Amino acid sequence: MKVIENRPSSLQVFEELESEVRSYCRSFPALFAKANGYQLWDVEGKQYIDFFAGAGALNYGHNNMRMKEKLIQYLINDGITHSLDMATKAKEMFLQRFHEVILKPRGMNYKVMFPGPTGTNSVESALKLARKVTGRETVMSFTNAFHGMTIGSLSVSGNKFKRKGAGIPLQNSVTMPFDRYFGDEIDTVSFIERFLEDNGSGVSLPAAIILETVQGEGGLHAASFHWLKRIRDICDRWKILLIVDDIQVGCGRTGTFFSFEPSGIQPDIICLSKSIGGYGLPMALTLIRPEIDIWEPGEHNGTFRGNNLSFVTATEALRYWETDAFSKEIKDKGEKIRHFLHDLVQNHPELEGEVRGRGLIQGIACGVEGMAENICAAAFERGLIIETSGPENEVVKLLPPLIIDEAGLTKGFEILDESIKKCKTSSTE
Amino acid sequence: MKVIENRPSSLQVFEELESEVRSYCRSFPALFAKANGYQLWDVEGKQYIDFFAGAGALNYGHNNMRMKEKLIQYLINDGITHSLDMATKAKEMFLQRFHEVILKPRGMNYKVMFPGPTGTNSVESALKLARKVTGRETVMSFTNAFHGMTIGSLSVSGNKFKRKGAGIPLQNSVTMPFDRYFGDEIDTVSFIERFLEDNGSGVSLPAAIILETVQGEGGLHAASFHWLKRIRDICDRWKILLIVDDIQVGCGRTGTFFSFEPSGIQPDIICLSKSIGGYGLPMALTLIRPEIDIWEPGEHNGTFRGNNLSFVTATEALRYWETDAFSKEIKDKGEKIRHFLHDLVQNHPELEGEVRGRGLIQGIACGVEGMAENICAAAFERGLIIETSGPENEVVKLLPPLIIDEAGLTKGFEILDESIKKCKTSSTE
Amino acid sequence: MKVIENRPSSLQVFEELESEVRSYCRSFPALFAKANGYQLWDVEGKQYIDFFAGAGALNYGHNNMRMKEKLIQYLINDGITHSLDMATKAKEMFLQRFHEVILKPRGMNYKVMFPGPTGTNSVESALKLARKVTGRETVMSFTNAFHGMTIGSLSVSGNKFKRKGAGIPLQNSVTMPFDRYFGDEIDTVSFIERFLEDNGSGVSLPAAIILETVQGEGGLHAASFHWLKRIRDICDRWKILLIVDDIQVGCGRTGTFFSFEPSGIQPDIICLSKSIGGYGLPMALTLIRPEIDIWEPGEHNGTFRGNNLSFVTATEALRYWETDAFSKEIKDKGEKIRHFLHDLVQNHPELEGEVRGRGLIQGIACGVEGMAENICAAAFERGLIIETSGPENEVVKLLPPLIIDEAGLTKGFEILDESIKKCKTSSTE
Amino acid sequence: MKVIENRPSSLQVFEELESEVRSYCRSFPALFAKANGYQLWDVEGKQYIDFFAGAGALNYGHNNMRMKEKLIQYLINDGITHSLDMATKAKEMFLQRFHEVILKPRGMNYKVMFPGPTGTNSVESALKLARKVTGRETVMSFTNAFHGMTIGSLSVSGNKFKRKGAGIPLQNSVTMPFDRYFGDEIDTVSFIERFLEDNGSGVSLPAAIILETVQGEGGLHAASFHWLKRIRDICDRWKILLIVDDIQVGCGRTGTFFSFEPSGIQPDIICLSKSIGGYGLPMALTLIRPEIDIWEPGEHNGTFRGNNLSFVTATEALRYWETDAFSKEIKDKGEKIRHFLHDLVQNHPELEGEVRGRGLIQGIACGVEGMAENICAAAFERGLIIETSGPENEVVKLLPPLIIDEAGLTKGFEILDESIKKCKTSSTE
Repeated sequence: MKVIENRPSSLQVFEELESEVRSYCRSFPALFAKANGYQLWDVEGKQYIDFFAGAGALNYGHNNMRMKEKLIQYLINDGITHSLDMATKAKEMFLQRFHEVILKPRGMNYKVMFPGPTGTNSVESALKLARKVTGRETVMSFTNAFHGMTIGSLSVSGNKFKRKGAGIPLQNSVTMPFDRYFGDEIDTVSFIERFLEDNGSGVSLPAAIILETVQGEGGLHAASFHWLKRIRDICDRWKILLIVDDIQVGCGRTGTFFSFEPSGIQPDIICLSKSIGGYGLPMALTLIRPEIDIWEPGEHNGTFRGNNLSFVTATEALRYWETDAFSKEIKDKGEKIRHFLHDLVQNHPELEGEVRGRGLIQGIACGVEGMAENICAAAFERGLIIETSGPENEVVKLLPPLIIDEAGLTKGFEILDESIKKCKTSSTE
Repeated sequence: MKVIENRPSSLQVFEELESEVRSYCRSFPALFAKANGYQLWDVEGKQYIDFFAGAGALNYGHNNMRMKEKLIQYLINDGITHSLDMATKAKEMFLQRFHEVILKPRGMNYKVMFPGPTGTNSVESALKLARKVTGRETVMSFTNAFHGMTIGSLSVSGNKFKRKGAGIPLQNSVTMPFDRYFGDEIDTVSFIERFLEDNGSGVSLPAAIILETVQGEGGLHAASFHWLKRIRDICDRWKILLIVDDIQVGCGRTGTFFSFEPSGIQPDIICLSKSIGGYGLPMALTLIRPEIDIWEPGEHNGTFRGNNLSFVTATEALRYWETDAFSKEIKDKGEKIRHFLHDLVQNHPELEGEVRGRGLIQGIACGVEGMAENICAAAFERGLIIETSGPENEVVKLLPPLIIDEAGLTKGFEILDESIKKCKTSSTE
Repeated sequence: MKVIENRPSSLQVFEELESEVRSYCRSFPALFAKANGYQLWDVEGKQYIDFFAGAGALNYGHNNMRMKEKLIQYLINDGITHSLDMATKAKEMFLQRFHEVILKPRGMNYKVMFPGPTGTNSVESALKLARKVTGRETVMSFTNAFHGMTIGSLSVSGNKFKRKGAGIPLQNSVTMPFDRYFGDEIDTVSFIERFLEDNGSGVSLPAAIILETVQGEGGLHAASFHWLKRIRDICDRWKILLIVDDIQVGCGRTGTFFSFEPSGIQPDIICLSKSIGGYGLPMALTLIRPEIDIWEPGEHNGTFRGNNLSFVTATEALRYWETDAFSKEIKDKGEKIRHFLHDLVQNHPELEGEVRGRGLIQGIACGVEGMAENICAAAFERGLIIETSGPENEVVKLLPPLIIDEAGLTKGFEILDESIKKCKTSSTE
Repeated sequence: MKVIENRPSSLQVFEELESEVRSYCRSFPALFAKANGYQLWDVEGKQYIDFFAGAGALNYGHNNMRMKEKLIQYLINDGITHSLDMATKAKEMFLQRFHEVILKPRGMNYKVMFPGPTGTNSVESALKLARKVTGRETVMSFTNAFHGMTIGSLSVSGNKFKRKGAGIPLQNSVTMPFDRYFGDEIDTVSFIERFLEDNGSGVSLPAAIILETVQGEGGLHAASFHWLKRIRDICDRWKILLIVDDIQVGCGRTGTFFSFEPSGIQPDIICLSKSIGGYGLPMALTLIRPEIDIWEPGEHNGTFRGNNLSFVTATEALRYWETDAFSKEIKDKGEKIRHFLHDLVQNHPELEGEVRGRGLIQGIACGVEGMAENICAAAFERGLIIETSGPENEVVKLLPPLIIDEAGLTKGFEILDESIKKCKTSSTE
């Protein structure tokens, strides 16, 4: 994201006391005070539309009323707040409801692991388990994948800048081309098969293949459902575990609770985090096929596995999934976004734009260097929070809360349109 | 911890739906519903004294009243809940208060990094930064260290069972003997020096030395302050960064806010988590000397860095540190525990017991195999939550909330005493 | 290679005293006593034609007369035999002659390193130097590459069986598809470029690309000269060093002294071994562009770098290269082999054969499992020493000494033809 | 070793054509032409006494007459020169004689592996096999160990300069203190035991412990036989394989054929090279206890495993070991050297000298920086070839051929004495 140099004086405390590693406060230089639904307000009362949604952690919007009520009630009652992985009433309710509302209706049979409340914890636990189950060491991941910033997860992520930050060579992983990486003509699955079939390829038989169905950080590349099925076939053929990292695009982001549902596949391990807690509170799950749930007690652990406030809001959030109305609603909004973006690309050929993504994670990849960053910066000035994606920050990424309404979408679209016009003018001056 | 086989039927949901990796619900087989201060209640209304304190995440007790009020008020006002690393009012207040109440009075100058809200995130960020600053790859850690379960942190942890769980060889680290590892006679610092001085030792000049001043998971070994000073000297001599992992024993656990304060040293990087959030909510900090705060924006990140509910309670928690009364109180309680444990060891020579630890993290290492686990199990039956520590679970570890009162301590002591008597009897039957 | 189970009793000593790791004595179960030119004799006087040539170490045949004379004379005169890397008269002569006969006429400017007298030593030295020069860690290698059996070289080799023998994960390397790996239609260079251009690909910028122009062990895949030029371009564009491992296919094997000469490229580092000593004596060279010869004295060393008997025969061997007559002769023989193999493939469609290779390293890849091994075993019974190549031993590999005459070739062809007929009959019985 | 800047013009060819990596030709700047026994002559006819013996590869002296005769006869008869690992008459004879003369009389039962003809090949094969047999990855090695320059061997070597040359982090190894590393008082074996016993030590159970009984490159530290026995006990207790790298100090260097004989231990794997070929020709062996000889055929291989000229001279060399006369002779010479060195140290207290080593590998560690290098340089000027050892080149290392006579020793002693006097004078000027 573009760093805006002239920050308002209101950020002085951060500049003086916080580490240089801070980033979003540079792209969105305001001091935020309140939020509700798809809107935020800064300390000066300025209102912002949110097309960012906590990088996918706020699918149900900010400070969702029903969840808030449950949360306050739980606090007032002195419900357990922190419990490590002891059994609590709040956790029990979440487990039951998750089973009833999500897994059972989908014919999915998975054990639930609480790996620590961040996405990267879930990915690390998935990698460990896959290696334990198979006795193999390599994990296969994809170009432009992003799975997290701790060493295990970073080893299966593609971004050069982030990988370099490790300060050590990242090992035990192999990168393969994602769907359409070499264009529409070349089938990357047969490519992977060739490497696996050939005993001289230098590619070890992996413990697991890990993938995102839509690459949220990597540039909004969406895998076709056919491609996903073929990856599943490869996994079956060589007894490789399939890990779907649904941290950013699960919890309804693409229209179904799990992003892979339309493909018909069942992963061996599923990573969930971000919006699973419902209210934006830290939480993560690792779902495991029962046959491979061969963990020893405590073989992976962590202090904040039992963040019960999350369990309370997460349980409430599941009510969105009791019928398929919410899913349908997301798909409708996704269609609207797609139309809007297609029109944008056609109306502004100078962007050299390409529409990417699926459901409520879509965007425009711009062929002009720096353009996407400029558009997002212009949008922020106009009250729209929206970030870029991709290895060169080349994609304008629309990630509104799933609960956004017509008015919110329309307002966001208008700001985007204006911002693009502004940027085009600037770049031709 | 010992697994109690006949679990009450109330845990059926967990047995059916949760992964085999669950552990504390096996040692403490009850379904917990409420908590306050140093007490918990299960669904059947049974009361428990807490000598475990969320493994150090509940230094201020469960559901602290003042923090709860602030939290509820913040929720009612629609304060920002989730903000990634954007600037929010709640974060600003925490930064200011942390600076004023903690850093400034101690003459400490550190930049604050929010690395993602778990301890292992903080450790991973510290390791990355140390490698970036020095351009070196190896990190030196100690026997029986525990720093976390993601691959980077696990590489500097000692426990064989946990390391094996990685499924890959753990690299870029070297283990050195902690203070008194070979007994009181042998100075382990000169040992380390010998390796560093000798160009043929096979030990690479490390980027950092990472340590806990008291090894919470590793068996309650407490480093002497003199030893800490000499480690700091080694770091100065070879320009090695000193990382103190104060995740479990910081935030007042040993009597001062930072555990290393009495030694007079200043680390280059400090990791904080667990009780920093005050209320048991996920939060972590990495404190960095300004000279080495050379991060690029976003070089380490994560979705839940901005867990504002934690900022609210963390800010309130700092009020405990406005004067030194709290610190004094902790030390007094620590003395009481020490006396109690010394008496225990003397009165029960069959335990072959050794008192270890410092402040409110003390315990008894038992020379008899399985004894510590039996004692903790017997204590749980009697309403005391207490866990073991050490590579063989050989230490009974007392970790009460810092705010525990005289009555709570006394009650806990009584249960422990009874439990030991019970175990002695059983083992001689 | 196929193991013949009923070994003659003459191999009893080997069965009792030598390790199970022995292999060629299983494929060629005879006790050899004498050799000359392209022929060997076993202890019972049976004669064998050599289409194996010491796996490429005997390009000038066995016990070449002129070299033998020089060698005996040197021994009689008490010339230095073993000198580490001290300066000796024999080494001086080799250096001068190699410069005059090989490098200078080809316009090649390289420093000569003596890395220890085996191919894998040369490769290890090349990898070290490339990493030192660039400060990068990854080395890019190709599918079905073979560069040696020590850990550094094995890390850039493709064969699964050999890699597994390491007993540790092999690191700091990345495998890319060799020329025509996905068939004639797909350009593997643009594939590599895509990975290097994309900052999100997960492929690190490598220190070096290492390749064989014809993959001797990997199945006789020959890179086109155009492909080699494009790889050189990639190296130039990203300042990657190009290492050509000419250990098996250099020293004239493909018709020119260096196998890459027809492509017009100049590698940054060249590995030579096998036939460089002329007489089959251990010797290896690493040729280095002067600009990158930044070794510290002794930064890579070894006891047998100064095997002066090799220098004597290697110097004599260079006489073959004083004019281009030898080169021409090799090419003519290569043509003969190509014709013979094409005819074979056409006359025996049941082989599902494909002719591969270049110059005097050519062969037939058989589509029928086990066929190549059967053919080689049948040939051995008929007095022809010939081995298989490829990850499934699917290639019958013709590797006669370069000095073989018309009669030798013809005799070898006849035996091969007979053997194929025999194998076809057996497989249809 | 010290580099002498004003090299004679006779080395011009090397300066122009050879890589900067060359080293001994800088310490010993002469152009050598002939050698016999313990003497060399340069092209100008100047004579040198050899106290270096090809770094241990010339235990039987240069150009030993009996071996030379056998060698020439073999060449004349067109005996097989290069055979990969096919069975040859020369190899059969070596295997039989090695069994009869060396293994059988010592009650040793080992399979013989020919791993490629350099020491580092033997070490790499030993490490691979140990990992395969145990399924473990880590290998334990010692401070100041030297096992070779390829990545596997380098990982278990201690020297910082050499390790850094790898250009990648060296992994899967752990360094432990050699005998007396912390002085005479501290028992390093109990130190290692502590690490292995403690499940929290961070030290993995290793596949193997690899050691030299006298550290030839690392500073002539000699392990006591008691220490070796205790290391063997550790290996037995934890089922760790013991690898003795007898490459430099085997073949009689310390007085017995294997250096560990007086300790009574039997290693699981033994590495031999350097003098095993007898005449200074490249050769190496890996000796393997039959129970662990679980190699697959060809799982480790190499082109020059079958260097038959070495087999011929190696077989002849075994005649030295038919009786114990040679062994006795070496011990007597070792005593002479010890007396001489002790006197030197006493007569020249300014050296701050300490006598180290065993048998015919002894030397003086000098406490004065640069002194050892100066002494060796002065000795070379006076016609004595002698090198330094140790991480700071602080040891003057006497390594004469085992066959040296009284006159040779005396002459060498005189030159050393003169050289020391010269250096003392210079340093006080």
